[in-house]
Amino acid sequence: MSNTSAARIPGRNILAVPGPTNVPDAVQRAMVVSMEDHRSTKFPELTHGLLSDLKKIYRTAEGQPFIFPSSGTGAWEAALTNTLSPGDRVLVPRFGQFSHLWADMAQRLGFDVEILDVDWGEGVPVERIGEILKADRQHTIKGILACHNETATGVTSDIGALRRAMDAAGHPALLFVDGVSSIGCIDFRMDEWGVDLAVTGSQKGLMLPAGLGILCVSQKALKTIGHAKSRRCYFDLADMVRTNATGYFPYTPALSLLYGLRAALDLLFQEGLDNVFARHHYLASGVRAAITEGWGLEVCAKAPKWHSDTVSAIVVPEGFNAAQVIDTAYRRYNLALGAGLSKVAGKVFRIGHLGDLNELMLVSAIAGAEMAMLDAGIDVRPGSGVGAAGQYWRTHTPGAQTATHAATQRVAEPVARRAANA
Amino acid sequence: MSNTSAARIPGRNILAVPGPTNVPDAVQRAMVVSMEDHRSTKFPELTHGLLSDLKKIYRTAEGQPFIFPSSGTGAWEAALTNTLSPGDRVLVPRFGQFSHLWADMAQRLGFDVEILDVDWGEGVPVERIGEILKADRQHTIKGILACHNETATGVTSDIGALRRAMDAAGHPALLFVDGVSSIGCIDFRMDEWGVDLAVTGSQKGLMLPAGLGILCVSQKALKTIGHAKSRRCYFDLADMVRTNATGYFPYTPALSLLYGLRAALDLLFQEGLDNVFARHHYLASGVRAAITEGWGLEVCAKAPKWHSDTVSAIVVPEGFNAAQVIDTAYRRYNLALGAGLSKVAGKVFRIGHLGDLNELMLVSAIAGAEMAMLDAGIDVRPGSGVGAAGQYWRTHTPGAQTATHAATQRVAEPVARRAANA
Amino acid sequence: MSNTSAARIPGRNILAVPGPTNVPDAVQRAMVVSMEDHRSTKFPELTHGLLSDLKKIYRTAEGQPFIFPSSGTGAWEAALTNTLSPGDRVLVPRFGQFSHLWADMAQRLGFDVEILDVDWGEGVPVERIGEILKADRQHTIKGILACHNETATGVTSDIGALRRAMDAAGHPALLFVDGVSSIGCIDFRMDEWGVDLAVTGSQKGLMLPAGLGILCVSQKALKTIGHAKSRRCYFDLADMVRTNATGYFPYTPALSLLYGLRAALDLLFQEGLDNVFARHHYLASGVRAAITEGWGLEVCAKAPKWHSDTVSAIVVPEGFNAAQVIDTAYRRYNLALGAGLSKVAGKVFRIGHLGDLNELMLVSAIAGAEMAMLDAGIDVRPGSGVGAAGQYWRTHTPGAQTATHAATQRVAEPVARRAANA
Amino acid sequence: MSNTSAARIPGRNILAVPGPTNVPDAVQRAMVVSMEDHRSTKFPELTHGLLSDLKKIYRTAEGQPFIFPSSGTGAWEAALTNTLSPGDRVLVPRFGQFSHLWADMAQRLGFDVEILDVDWGEGVPVERIGEILKADRQHTIKGILACHNETATGVTSDIGALRRAMDAAGHPALLFVDGVSSIGCIDFRMDEWGVDLAVTGSQKGLMLPAGLGILCVSQKALKTIGHAKSRRCYFDLADMVRTNATGYFPYTPALSLLYGLRAALDLLFQEGLDNVFARHHYLASGVRAAITEGWGLEVCAKAPKWHSDTVSAIVVPEGFNAAQVIDTAYRRYNLALGAGLSKVAGKVFRIGHLGDLNELMLVSAIAGAEMAMLDAGIDVRPGSGVGAAGQYWRTHTPGAQTATHAATQRVAEPVARRAANA
Repeated sequence: MSNTSAARIPGRNILAVPGPTNVPDAVQRAMVVSMEDHRSTKFPELTHGLLSDLKKIYRTAEGQPFIFPSSGTGAWEAALTNTLSPGDRVLVPRFGQFSHLWADMAQRLGFDVEILDVDWGEGVPVERIGEILKADRQHTIKGILACHNETATGVTSDIGALRRAMDAAGHPALLFVDGVSSIGCIDFRMDEWGVDLAVTGSQKGLMLPAGLGILCVSQKALKTIGHAKSRRCYFDLADMVRTNATGYFPYTPALSLLYGLRAALDLLFQEGLDNVFARHHYLASGVRAAITEGWGLEVCAKAPKWHSDTVSAIVVPEGFNAAQVIDTAYRRYNLALGAGLSKVAGKVFRIGHLGDLNELMLVSAIAGAEMAMLDAGIDVRPGSGVGAAGQYWRTHTPGAQTATHAATQRVAEPVARRAANA
Repeated sequence: MSNTSAARIPGRNILAVPGPTNVPDAVQRAMVVSMEDHRSTKFPELTHGLLSDLKKIYRTAEGQPFIFPSSGTGAWEAALTNTLSPGDRVLVPRFGQFSHLWADMAQRLGFDVEILDVDWGEGVPVERIGEILKADRQHTIKGILACHNETATGVTSDIGALRRAMDAAGHPALLFVDGVSSIGCIDFRMDEWGVDLAVTGSQKGLMLPAGLGILCVSQKALKTIGHAKSRRCYFDLADMVRTNATGYFPYTPALSLLYGLRAALDLLFQEGLDNVFARHHYLASGVRAAITEGWGLEVCAKAPKWHSDTVSAIVVPEGFNAAQVIDTAYRRYNLALGAGLSKVAGKVFRIGHLGDLNELMLVSAIAGAEMAMLDAGIDVRPGSGVGAAGQYWRTHTPGAQTATHAATQRVAEPVARRAANA
Repeated sequence: MSNTSAARIPGRNILAVPGPTNVPDAVQRAMVVSMEDHRSTKFPELTHGLLSDLKKIYRTAEGQPFIFPSSGTGAWEAALTNTLSPGDRVLVPRFGQFSHLWADMAQRLGFDVEILDVDWGEGVPVERIGEILKADRQHTIKGILACHNETATGVTSDIGALRRAMDAAGHPALLFVDGVSSIGCIDFRMDEWGVDLAVTGSQKGLMLPAGLGILCVSQKALKTIGHAKSRRCYFDLADMVRTNATGYFPYTPALSLLYGLRAALDLLFQEGLDNVFARHHYLASGVRAAITEGWGLEVCAKAPKWHSDTVSAIVVPEGFNAAQVIDTAYRRYNLALGAGLSKVAGKVFRIGHLGDLNELMLVSAIAGAEMAMLDAGIDVRPGSGVGAAGQYWRTHTPGAQTATHAATQRVAEPVARRAANA
Repeated sequence: MSNTSAARIPGRNILAVPGPTNVPDAVQRAMVVSMEDHRSTKFPELTHGLLSDLKKIYRTAEGQPFIFPSSGTGAWEAALTNTLSPGDRVLVPRFGQFSHLWADMAQRLGFDVEILDVDWGEGVPVERIGEILKADRQHTIKGILACHNETATGVTSDIGALRRAMDAAGHPALLFVDGVSSIGCIDFRMDEWGVDLAVTGSQKGLMLPAGLGILCVSQKALKTIGHAKSRRCYFDLADMVRTNATGYFPYTPALSLLYGLRAALDLLFQEGLDNVFARHHYLASGVRAAITEGWGLEVCAKAPKWHSDTVSAIVVPEGFNAAQVIDTAYRRYNLALGAGLSKVAGKVFRIGHLGDLNELMLVSAIAGAEMAMLDAGIDVRPGSGVGAAGQYWRTHTPGAQTATHAATQRVAEPVARRAANA
């Protein structure tokens, strides 16, 4: 088989790109399923459970989740074509490759896209948008497309603040949010933030292979789909609404991934969503300690308020090529780092710290990046990254109330292990 | 997990719907993969191999295959939106639920759809289309949408004849073919038949879970994509053409399914495509023997020339409800039969005989259908279906030259097995 | 890989040998585990759960189960060497290949083995043993080795009656029982029957791959292990008793199989042990209907009281070679039947009907055996086997109270399935 | 299931015990197999391939390998009982828990065991044995039991030198070698060293779950099995010799593990055995750099010549308890370190560096051990371990000729990765 045919590189590839993420064993197992009739009387049990539980992930009571056999890009398209008509005006702050691509999609789908360019390293310009909305007295703007976590630069934006600015302007535009690299990792509050269309994919916080595009839609947005004139069929929500109601899908669903999703949701609930978010913050803080305190380098995000808890883009010093670091990491150390994309190509490399991770898995990425930087001639002290991250983790615990409690428990049990003959 | 939480029904569910099909062990195994960076230097090896090998499945030298994270329905949409502009006139013969759904999609996507209704149980009306094309002197018809194998009725059409009719009319319309339930099972000759857009999905002849929509496009059709004005982004072929060229995809691909596809293609080539087709014909003939000779019933397909080698729709006698047969089969015998859809709901039940199957796997479906018919009060002789199928299979071998040879070999080796103490 | 390298035989191999049995999906999944430290503080949770739940399978409150990384043969040896000393006299009724092999093992391990030969097709000669025991006033007989279900001939013996005969003789010999092909399939009552050492393996009723030898030991037998002078180390129970107490094993356990066992036990309890037994009887009765009513043949077991609910040995008519039937079934129909062993080689073929099975899985075996018999020239009516089995199953339900109830439920739900658009 | 039921600890457990080792994906996949008839005509292909390829692992032309469903402990027993008779005199140098356990087994099996106690941290005392053998003019010593790699202390002995000493003494004793934690990792030359019985298990260098005990036997040793009077049945080699000859086993083999072994052998050959050994040395050297240069600590092995390339036992400073380090590592950092056993309990913790490993997987173990030591109050500089290991690995390549070449290739390819749109 082609995946073992080439020269064997021993050991596990260390996957530190910001998605796809590591698939936990329990999820991997859950996907080993025999096929079944997706129109059986038994099938709706699976569908209903998934759709109901996805609401918890989105922290929504009134929103309705949808699952497409697609990548997250498909869910982007579903969000736009089901609620907008060609020529509709949308506002898109752009500050990275993924906000760029979403804007580009909106243009290609025929909307009137107004791009707000922002320095890469910053996020959604809330005040500026507030002013634009206030100025839009005729409410010609139909939607705002905001990237919650820009995967290319490691920047998280404040969607709650964006909602407040929209409300302050009394503007009825729909709020579209790309949560592909945040949902399931960083707190995401669909109802509280008044998000209308929230997009994610299976291969990030949901810890699955790619193949599911997931979209959650507010009641307000659902009401618009009858009026939206964008042509669509595969991604048509009306078909989904109708068939999902009885537990089915309009066409054959990606069964093995659905069973994987079932297991992934179970894992997230078992850990507790608040604990999941706290863990991501705690792990990200260690990685940032490695970057700044250990290596003396900077992240692409220009201020702590933009720091992403799921991905860090590390700026290599002037005169060095980040692509070389990435290449050495991959070829010599079997480590997959994220590349700098577009405007920051060659200037940054990225470490994804999202999904099913813990301290020592991240240590591999930090050490490998460090070794590759040294190989590239970048002057960092050997061991400094892991040292700084380790010191952070040793002296902190994940912050959520329950998580702290759990962490305490993990340490507090007596050293009773391994009896004499063990 | 939800797939084991309910009351346990022991043993394997017998999957006899016409897709999804049974996933072979080797394919199931191949999907147990760790995630990896889909932008690594190693990744193109996988992509190039798959795209190159798919051409063999389509029997095309000049066509270009594409793989989408979607169901087959997505590939239908990709075929249409990349080559047609809103208002374009297309001709769609309709003779079952799937030809109906494709016509419906074409309408919803804004094309000028001319439906040719044909009795359910017949297939593409080649002569009638020939006449329409001849009459279309201005070549206003841009495409013909033909369902190679109508899954709802078990009818296979003659696409070669359709091409000859188009050529005889000297008509330049594009030939769109739905091969979802034929490709990889029934001989499909993209180049020889001059098919321009050939659609399939992963969950039928390719023996995978659903989740991949596969489309093969002729050079002629590829030339049109620059002019087609249908709005599209997720399914845009231009993005695919550009990124596939270097072995990548425009967005995160469905990795585990791609590795499964690798293994599935290997299996098909290992058996030999001609042998695969011969096996499907041989197995289907046995099922038809059960239906007609064993049970004295009829299939929905109105003449032998329409008989499908991948699915048979069995007409229950007047006064009986096929839905009851299906329901009893599922609940009491753990057998998933295909339901009658739309016009034939309640009138037929379907046995899928496609994918990774052999005689004795089909015996389960035949016997289970027979037992469920008896439970429903239908007068068939117990054992008659299996008896007739078995007699067919005992006295025939799969027809392809090499397959016959292989079958001979399978029997000819001496009875040297199982020594004394075994 | 070698398991796919040879000429591909399409479809699933129908596994109808009396072990190994079909591994359910949930068990297959459960074995896809990363390795872990078997001396961790977490590990005992697994061990304790398994050992505790195995008691339920043995229906014992006081017996203690042990799990060895071995085949069932290893558990045979463990039973003998931990309780007997070289020269100890044991009584072994012999009526098939497996009772023969256990006797042979006992001889090779240095015990004084008194073999009671019984016609193959009959089982434990309870009365004869009762007489021998009564005559053994000095209690020189230390053990009786009884095969509960002789896999070679499809004969089940009455262990309860054997215990009553032992008690009637007031004899203190240990009662050793081979339950390899009965435990988890046929009711086995360790405590009620006063079994002292009950042996099984993972690959039969426990629905796992081979690799675990399982032994349950009564308190009476446990008391003897300090006195037993047979040399042993790997299979020494004292090491197991000591390490199991805290949840560990004396050496590295077969981890993936242990996780599989966890899942297998969960499935058995989910179905309900009584339902499992009732299902085996119901399925076996259908197979016997095929053999006797359908084909007009006989099973090896000489009277209904010996009929095994886990395996049937079918006697082919005079002048035919059962090996040819088996060989054709395997090569031409991809069906693995059990061979006749030793005395019955060539005279019988065997259908295993144990483990994770249902009606339609067995139909494959019955039909395949029938087709292979026809190919061999044996005069059976095509379809007669499946017809007779089907009629039995259609008109009966598994007998246990709860099972009947469940079966009723399976049928009683309204025919509400498959809505319009399905 | 019990393996996910408890409080979820996120991310992968870092497995750094010296066995079981990490199972590569390709091996994990290979074990997902349906059961099959182990007496089929197809089965011998698997058996013959495995037995033949195991000879390459042992570097033997004349030795014969055997595979038992057992742990490595079972293979220890098979080696002894098939070649020795009760009362036979054997010499056992003892310098760790595993040499101790083998000696203990030999005593329990009734041999006359002469233990040569050696300081833990040293290995086989070749000169002393040479003298004993020379003194044994009557050749009363029948066997020498040597532990090639003492897993408890991280000490590798020179088996070639031992052979030379035996030859110098002209002594015919059989040479028994425990290669459980060396074979498949450290060069092992059965023929060149004149090893008579070489034992290993599946869960170390062979990268499988535990469950297979593997033994390779020289022709000289094979000749003794007819004379050896130790009682045995399960582990009897004569049964294996007889059944293996035609590709079968005396009892049901552990099928899923055999398929895993097939895949594991393929991986080892694909990498190249010399490369595998060179990689283990290179990785071990990095770990030792972490211990000595980074942390300023010592390994248990008392001189470089004893350094094991598969496991390092790290001595914690006076006044600290290694058990606390191990416990913190497990509970707080999800890292499984090996415990100090018996004489060195509390004094050492162990890092296994064997099996399917690379630099960055080991980094996790080093960093986790360091963090746990810091938590325990041991004065090591944060990051020093990973820094020293990384510097070693950055400046060295695996030493074997071909490996160096491969490593060069891995680095030399141009930095052509990740095109513009990636």
